[in-house]
Amino acid sequence: MKIRVNVMLKEGVLDPQGKAIGHALEVLGFANVGEVRVGKTMELEIATEDRSAALEQGEAMARELLANLVIEDFAVEVIG
Amino acid sequence: MKIRVNVMLKEGVLDPQGKAIGHALEVLGFANVGEVRVGKTMELEIATEDRSAALEQGEAMARELLANLVIEDFAVEVIG
Repeated sequence: MKIRVNVMLKEGVLDPQGKAIGHALEVLGFANVGEVRVGKTMELEIATEDRSAALEQGEAMARELLANLVIEDFAVEVIG
Repeated sequence: MKIRVNVMLKEGVLDPQGKAIGHALEVLGFANVGEVRVGKTMELEIATEDRSAALEQGEAMARELLANLVIEDFAVEVIG
């Protein structure tokens, strides 16, 4: 089973990368772009056919390694 | 309207970051993890209420800036 873990900075945490991308898009002529937030996305192959077990494991891996819980939020979804 | 642009390395492109995460997860005791792929995810606020215009703009921004089309694939979705 394949899961995806999206890790984003928490609301209120400054996102300089997002700001830089927003500015670059404006320079390229995309004038209607507001806030831009940048994060990591990870696709992981889990050797199980149990959907809830895969989601639970995704959460555990995010808590232990994939996300910095002080400044980041994460979301886990099954994608395949 | 809020869109998400996910940018992942193309199949076949070496993903050292993914390999390192896979190894670290194994060391942490997650023994049933196969391939790990890492990418970027961006959430962008677009000043439009037209869903298809937002998706089209997301594609255009990905082609022009957000993705390196030589080694990366991207996907655009409306999330809010």
